[in-house]
Amino acid sequence: MSANSIFAFDVYGTLFNIQSVDATCEEHFPGQGESIGQLWRQKQIQYSFLRQAMGKYVPFSSVTKDALRFSLASHHADWTQETEQKLMKAYNHLSLFEESMHVLQKLKDQSATLIVFSNGSRDMLEPLLEQAGLNDYLDHIISVDDIKQFKPSPASYQLVLDTARVPRHEITFLSSNGWDISGAKAFGFTTAWINRSEQPTEELQLPPDYHYTTLNPLIEG
Amino acid sequence: MSANSIFAFDVYGTLFNIQSVDATCEEHFPGQGESIGQLWRQKQIQYSFLRQAMGKYVPFSSVTKDALRFSLASHHADWTQETEQKLMKAYNHLSLFEESMHVLQKLKDQSATLIVFSNGSRDMLEPLLEQAGLNDYLDHIISVDDIKQFKPSPASYQLVLDTARVPRHEITFLSSNGWDISGAKAFGFTTAWINRSEQPTEELQLPPDYHYTTLNPLIEG
Repeated sequence: MSANSIFAFDVYGTLFNIQSVDATCEEHFPGQGESIGQLWRQKQIQYSFLRQAMGKYVPFSSVTKDALRFSLASHHADWTQETEQKLMKAYNHLSLFEESMHVLQKLKDQSATLIVFSNGSRDMLEPLLEQAGLNDYLDHIISVDDIKQFKPSPASYQLVLDTARVPRHEITFLSSNGWDISGAKAFGFTTAWINRSEQPTEELQLPPDYHYTTLNPLIEG
Repeated sequence: MSANSIFAFDVYGTLFNIQSVDATCEEHFPGQGESIGQLWRQKQIQYSFLRQAMGKYVPFSSVTKDALRFSLASHHADWTQETEQKLMKAYNHLSLFEESMHVLQKLKDQSATLIVFSNGSRDMLEPLLEQAGLNDYLDHIISVDDIKQFKPSPASYQLVLDTARVPRHEITFLSSNGWDISGAKAFGFTTAWINRSEQPTEELQLPPDYHYTTLNPLIEG
């Protein structure tokens, strides 16, 4: 990748490991942590799609809490408001993937413009980025909350374009989520799918331009 | 429910058992039929939401084929075009739930207006309804394909309203899909969730008006 490149990174699952909430789930619900965490994430994504389709936007922090409640109810769990708050707080303390910080540093050294672009509302996104110490490397933090439309709507990707002010294909968008890559590709960005769990390509006739398993290839060669 | 009522039924999972494709999957991929069928359905629904959010509509028959391909690839299956066609054809021969026909007959005897309203495109929907012998009971067959927007978009439910031409709450919408019930409720229909697999209510702040586990309560007392 050349100097002065523009990179827009998805956050959840791409820079940060969302599976790190499973440990907190396990503390509160022994033996069910992984299963609760998995359904929590599935419903979180589904609810954002549904709300986008229904035109019933609420911030991603509300979507995340709703999804948690569905997952707990589905597991026949009993829980208090205090437990719910602790589980929600785990989302502000996700672990970075091991290469994330180094890749951002290297790209910044090469004078790249670094953007994060997330479905997360600022009440979730800003504490997360701050506690991870990423703010020094980021030129822009873009949340769909500013227009109240979730990815993968064209209006959401437009937010990145309005910030970067370059032709669409000059923006390289990176996400671990195949659906997010499809949306960005449909919008006209150059896309790199960080396929961390080695999933098949989504059958949406919108294949990624680049296909990696970590962020490392961005700073290699 | 009173005479002259208007009922709009979802099709897949509500009148027909979509799990009946699992047997065909099992024939072709022994030991993996249920798992292939389950992921096929999950991706089918997800792809319809994604295409609605991206504004990239294709008919549900294409969505269904794409979802099948993803599921097969995910299961590391080898398959031929012939196998694909056989599996797709299973969607035209789904089994009715045991009470579906009787309930439609009874409601028709009571002079109810009966509508089916589906994400399915007519190339899937019409052969299915015909082979099951339902056409005699149905006043209207409505497919989102006529406006190329999937449920749960408000535009899709509007199609039913345009056909029925009554105030929204006079239309009782029935679906086994919690997300479809939420969309119909957001639009203003009276909703009855046919919660066949006894799932928790979706956490979308749009609870159903009625909550049944089969269609039978529609014709009881």
